[in-house]
Amino acid sequence: MLVVKKFGGTSVANKERIFNVAKRCIEDYKKGNQVVVVLSAMGKQTDVLLDMARDINPKASRREMDMLLTTGEQTSVALMAMAMDSLGVPAISLNAFQVAMHTTADYSNAKLKRIDTERIYNELENRRIVIITGFQGIDKYDNYTTLGRGGSDTTAVALAAALHADACEIYTDVDGVYTADPRVVPKARKLEVVTYDEMLELASLGAGVLHNRSVEMAKKYDVQLVVRSSLNNNEGTIVKEDTKMEKMLVSGVATDKNVVQISVEGLENKPGVAFKLFQHLANHNVNVDMILQSVEHSGKQDISFTVTEEDADVAIETIDRHAESSLKCDQVNVTRDVAKVSVVGAGMMTHPGVAAKMFEALYDCGVNIRQISTSEIRVTVLIDEKYTEAAAQAVHEKFSLD
Amino acid sequence: MLVVKKFGGTSVANKERIFNVAKRCIEDYKKGNQVVVVLSAMGKQTDVLLDMARDINPKASRREMDMLLTTGEQTSVALMAMAMDSLGVPAISLNAFQVAMHTTADYSNAKLKRIDTERIYNELENRRIVIITGFQGIDKYDNYTTLGRGGSDTTAVALAAALHADACEIYTDVDGVYTADPRVVPKARKLEVVTYDEMLELASLGAGVLHNRSVEMAKKYDVQLVVRSSLNNNEGTIVKEDTKMEKMLVSGVATDKNVVQISVEGLENKPGVAFKLFQHLANHNVNVDMILQSVEHSGKQDISFTVTEEDADVAIETIDRHAESSLKCDQVNVTRDVAKVSVVGAGMMTHPGVAAKMFEALYDCGVNIRQISTSEIRVTVLIDEKYTEAAAQAVHEKFSLD
Repeated sequence: MLVVKKFGGTSVANKERIFNVAKRCIEDYKKGNQVVVVLSAMGKQTDVLLDMARDINPKASRREMDMLLTTGEQTSVALMAMAMDSLGVPAISLNAFQVAMHTTADYSNAKLKRIDTERIYNELENRRIVIITGFQGIDKYDNYTTLGRGGSDTTAVALAAALHADACEIYTDVDGVYTADPRVVPKARKLEVVTYDEMLELASLGAGVLHNRSVEMAKKYDVQLVVRSSLNNNEGTIVKEDTKMEKMLVSGVATDKNVVQISVEGLENKPGVAFKLFQHLANHNVNVDMILQSVEHSGKQDISFTVTEEDADVAIETIDRHAESSLKCDQVNVTRDVAKVSVVGAGMMTHPGVAAKMFEALYDCGVNIRQISTSEIRVTVLIDEKYTEAAAQAVHEKFSLD
Repeated sequence: MLVVKKFGGTSVANKERIFNVAKRCIEDYKKGNQVVVVLSAMGKQTDVLLDMARDINPKASRREMDMLLTTGEQTSVALMAMAMDSLGVPAISLNAFQVAMHTTADYSNAKLKRIDTERIYNELENRRIVIITGFQGIDKYDNYTTLGRGGSDTTAVALAAALHADACEIYTDVDGVYTADPRVVPKARKLEVVTYDEMLELASLGAGVLHNRSVEMAKKYDVQLVVRSSLNNNEGTIVKEDTKMEKMLVSGVATDKNVVQISVEGLENKPGVAFKLFQHLANHNVNVDMILQSVEHSGKQDISFTVTEEDADVAIETIDRHAESSLKCDQVNVTRDVAKVSVVGAGMMTHPGVAAKMFEALYDCGVNIRQISTSEIRVTVLIDEKYTEAAAQAVHEKFSLD
């Protein structure tokens, strides 16, 4: 059996943890498995490097930034190989260049294109554990690139796909995927299984266990993932394609407080107004989430949307700049103390009434809904931030997730 | 004009020094020159990495050690490119893999084989300063290697040779090559020119400015070197091939206190005894320097030789182990407080009498000579360590070097 195991930065933050990871991998190896390990940079190493770079040049080119950052994973894989070696198991570390992890040339946000598997197979056949740098790649001119947020997860999934691995285990500091964030909903339970689509909805709602890109890649190449803890031997959560087994109506409740609602009021009601507004925002790289367009009143209309707190100031400035000339709106309202609460479940595609049941739970505990958005397997409401925990717990209970 | 400039770890140890180096390189660039910069790892970074490795595995494989250490230079070249960029000059960093710096697979002590110059020329033609990692290479399987002591100097010389550079400047924390160590001989003067052979003799005598391997390579490929300070704009010392100009009789006086004299007394005077003795030492990687074989007395003979302090204990143990069985010697004497004083000069090949003049200077100040060794351009004497400074100063004055 060929297993790909990915460990994040906290799992290799110091000597003790490095040996902890080494031992877990060696257990697998001693069962006769072929083991490929993907590592991030140690602990806060990436932040240390970023600080060094900012100190030298706050506007450092992304090409040189990637050249600098890729030293982080190279350090952790070399030390891991040394640790395994000291435990008597042959291991070899390989970086993006040695594996030939080809990506696009989009520094700091590159996309994986192709992995040469020959070297890895050779090392595995020599019964070595192969330890590979996550997060990094090389472009066609041999420049280093990095894959952006969640990059090491993506590396692990891509390797599992390229190597036709029998398992791809993503180790984190939590036990798996939960029905809700246990800090928000104390009765949250760990899920045994979620589908790729549920995981994608949960991830984009801030569940934070797996990054969307890695889940999308896993779905595309049908790589079954296991999310589990590096600190214990609990079973974790399996992420896989829809199966024929009965689907859970709702598999989880997600909350996200990193939201600002912006309402642009008194826009002319004519074609192209919404296009102009969102075009201006896109030009400034503002990611817009929930959008609500009001019905017309006296020839005017309002458009509300949400952005992250990081994007809020740029969004507001952009709208202000174009308020008179191009948008011709009356006023802009900004509400910062709002939050999103979502229910996610592959089962809701075939079971109507999920939204109604959710709204009932919110009504029962007196929470007002400011905005609604839905996908095939998700219902999200925007509410006042102070009700986040109460709303999440009420919804969690309503769908019998406790 | 194409210039290769090499800076050591202390020259890039912090932000201020990095910018200092960046500015010096930019001065050259703004004169219209093509500039290639070779850097070592920052300050004590290599030591930090070595400590991390030893903490994980004191017997770490050299392959993984090189994988770890090569992150050091990659960090400094990336930061340097950022610094130059912030000063408005386009720069690009390249590591051993991007330059294709091919070496043998002797991890931690690899030899350079071939450098692909295409990428470097392309970047130079685009009017970029090209910043290259010193000390590191890749073997034919794309594993990282390092070049061992003085490796970055060797990288610089190899690049200068491969690129047919017009100048190769080695920046250090001293002004150049001196007629003697100024701490030992206060009246020492900086030399304007030394030959490769003189530099080799001085380097092997502990002058410590340039490593022998880089000088040997410079000689082989006829790369003219300049050794100069990164802290001021003084002219430095040129290292080049013998010219037709009048050669200095003696260009420098070198001293070395890292010496232990070992005398093996009462050996049988028959063929093969010296061979056996030095074979035993070679088997234990002991580097033997000055050798003196006494004339026969009562069918026996003595052999004295010197080793470094690091090798002394192994040498003594080795001899003791074989003293009765194979060497059949009477006793072993060890003298630790000895030192070597040498005069070096390409001119002595054609001017006899240098040794006599040196011995006269030593006699004049009452210093006893324990042992003598010579090469074509060098005379070395072994004396009591306490006379090192007095002897060096007397010899320095005798040859009018003050």
